[in-house]
Amino acid sequence: MLTVAVDVMSGDRGATECVPGAVAALLDDPALAILAVGDPGQIEPVLARLGSAVRRRIGIVPAASVVPMDESPRHAIRTRRDSSMRVALDLVRSQRAAAAVSAGNTGALTGMAHFVLRTLPSVERAPIMSAVPAAHGHTYMLDLGANITATPVQLTQFALMGSIVAREAWNVREPRIGLLNVGKEDIKGHALVREAHERIRALGLNYVGFVEGDDIFSGEVDVVVTDGFTGNVALKTMEGLATLLTARLRAEFRRGPWSLLAGAVAHPVLRRVATELDPRRYNGACMVGLTAVVIKSHGRADRTAFASAVALAARAVRHELPRHIGEAFAQQAD
Amino acid sequence: MLTVAVDVMSGDRGATECVPGAVAALLDDPALAILAVGDPGQIEPVLARLGSAVRRRIGIVPAASVVPMDESPRHAIRTRRDSSMRVALDLVRSQRAAAAVSAGNTGALTGMAHFVLRTLPSVERAPIMSAVPAAHGHTYMLDLGANITATPVQLTQFALMGSIVAREAWNVREPRIGLLNVGKEDIKGHALVREAHERIRALGLNYVGFVEGDDIFSGEVDVVVTDGFTGNVALKTMEGLATLLTARLRAEFRRGPWSLLAGAVAHPVLRRVATELDPRRYNGACMVGLTAVVIKSHGRADRTAFASAVALAARAVRHELPRHIGEAFAQQAD
Repeated sequence: MLTVAVDVMSGDRGATECVPGAVAALLDDPALAILAVGDPGQIEPVLARLGSAVRRRIGIVPAASVVPMDESPRHAIRTRRDSSMRVALDLVRSQRAAAAVSAGNTGALTGMAHFVLRTLPSVERAPIMSAVPAAHGHTYMLDLGANITATPVQLTQFALMGSIVAREAWNVREPRIGLLNVGKEDIKGHALVREAHERIRALGLNYVGFVEGDDIFSGEVDVVVTDGFTGNVALKTMEGLATLLTARLRAEFRRGPWSLLAGAVAHPVLRRVATELDPRRYNGACMVGLTAVVIKSHGRADRTAFASAVALAARAVRHELPRHIGEAFAQQAD
Repeated sequence: MLTVAVDVMSGDRGATECVPGAVAALLDDPALAILAVGDPGQIEPVLARLGSAVRRRIGIVPAASVVPMDESPRHAIRTRRDSSMRVALDLVRSQRAAAAVSAGNTGALTGMAHFVLRTLPSVERAPIMSAVPAAHGHTYMLDLGANITATPVQLTQFALMGSIVAREAWNVREPRIGLLNVGKEDIKGHALVREAHERIRALGLNYVGFVEGDDIFSGEVDVVVTDGFTGNVALKTMEGLATLLTARLRAEFRRGPWSLLAGAVAHPVLRRVATELDPRRYNGACMVGLTAVVIKSHGRADRTAFASAVALAARAVRHELPRHIGEAFAQQAD
C-alpha cells in the first residue's frame, strides 16, 4: 500500500472539492491509501457514504488552520505549523506518507516543501513541472512558478531534472530539451539565458537549444525549461486564451436557431477536442528535486482535477523520481 | 497625403507578400502614399498591373541588401546602411516619410530605430505594443519583444506610454493598466516588478495593479505592461496554442463522414470566431517612444497581415502618437 498525504483544505475550493477528489483517486487505484489532512468536521461527512473497504484506506489527520492564498512564504513557514499544508509535508518527513499533495498557495508550498523536505544533495532549487498539450501529445514544462527567478546554474539543473522526470515518469525516450527564449539563434536573449544555454549544452542531454513560446506546442521538443516567472506567465496565458476561445465559441453557437443547430451537430466533435485539451486531465505539477514527492494542484481545481493530482503523486512515487534525480546529480558531481 | 516608408524585402516572405500587402493598404486608404524600399527588380513587376492613379502614390527607393533574420542588432547597425530596413528608417529621419514599416528581425529593427530616430526626451527605451483579442474586445500589450530586459523605471515609462497609445490610437477611455506578474498580491514577484509596481502607482494613471497571464484576455485591464522577454514569450505562446487548437479542430472534423458533415454545418460559426481572433487582423506592433512612428510587422505576415501593419502606421501618424507621448513626458518632468 502506497500512502499519500493530502492537504484537503487548500485551494480556491477547499474541502468541498478536495475531499471528493481524493476519494475519487482512491476508488481508481486499489493500491493507494490516503491521509486526508484538515478539519475532521468537514472531511468525515464526505467519507460517511463510502463502503468500509474503501473507508479503511483513508485516515484523517487533523490540522487546525489553512495557509491563506495571499500569505508570504516566510510568514507561512514561521507561523503555520498547524496548517493542513505543513502537516501533510510533516507526514512525508516522518515517513508516514510517501508523497504530499496540496492545491494551496504556490509560494508557501514551495517555501515549506524546501524547508521541511529539503532538496536532494547538489540540487539548489526544486522547480514545478507539468504536462501541457502539444502537437505530438504533450510537452513537459518547468519551472511553472515555484521559483520566481533562476540562475544559469539553476536553469541547467532544471534541464537535467526535466529530462529525468520526462523519461522516468512520462515514458519519453531520450527527451528533447529546449530552453525558452525570444528567438532560436545563439545571439538571442539576455546574458542569463545565454550562459544557461552553454551550460546545458555541456551536460550531454538531448538538448535542442533555444525554443520560442510557440514551440511549447509545436512538437519539436519534449521538455521546455524556463524560470518560474516566465513559466507561470506562459501557463496562465494558455489558460486565459483557452477560456476566451471556449467562451467565444459558446456565444457564437447561441447566436440564433441556425447556430444552435450547428452547435448541436458539431458538439460531439468539439467535445472530443475539448476533452483532449481539458486542463483538468493534466492537473498536478510535480515539484522535482526534493527528497520526496510533492505535487502542486491548480488552486482552482475541481474534484476531477484534484483526483488527477493525487494520481500523479502515486505515479511519481512508484517511478521513484527522487531516487533517479539523486543518482543523476551524484553522477554529475563525480 | 501621408507617406509611409515600407521595407518590402524583410520578414520570412519578403517582397512576395510585402509588396502586395503595401499595395492593398494603399487601395484601402486614398490619402496614403508609399515609398517601397528594396530591390526594384522585385517591386516593379507587382506594380505594373496597377492603374495609374494608384501607381502615382507609390515611389520605389532602391536598397541593395536585406538584414538577415539572425543578424545581431549591433552588426546590423554597423554594416547594413544599404539595407531596406535602414533606408526606410533614414527616409523617416530625412522627413521624406512620416513612418516606417518592417517585417524584419525585431532586434535589428529595435536597434536601428533607436539609433536612427532616437527616443523622445526622457524616454529610455522604445517598447513594441500591439492589440491582443480579449473578452471585452482587445487588450494592448507592451513590450512584446523590443527590449529583452527592462528596469523598474523603464517598465514605469512603458505604463505611461501604453496608457497614452491606448487612449490616442485605440480610443480606450481611461485605459486600465496592469503590470504582469505571477500573482495579484503586493507580495508576489521579484524585486524588479515590485519596484515598478510602486513607481507606476505613483504616476496617477488608472492603474489596476498586478495582473496574471490569464488577465491578458479576461477584460479586467486594457493595457498589460511587461518586459520584452516575458511579453514575447506570452505572445508566441498564444500563437502556438491557437495554431494547435486550429489543427486539432481541423483533424477532428475530418475523422469520418459524420464529422465532415458536422464540420460543414458548423463551418460558418467557426469561421466567425476564427475571423474575429485572426492574428492577421491585429498584425502590426507600434514601437512607441521614438521621435517618429515605426511599425513592426510579424515576420510570418502574409499580404493581408502586412497591409494591416501599413494601415496601423498611417493611423499612428494621424493620431500624432509621438507628439502625445512627448508632451506627457515633458509634463512628468515638470
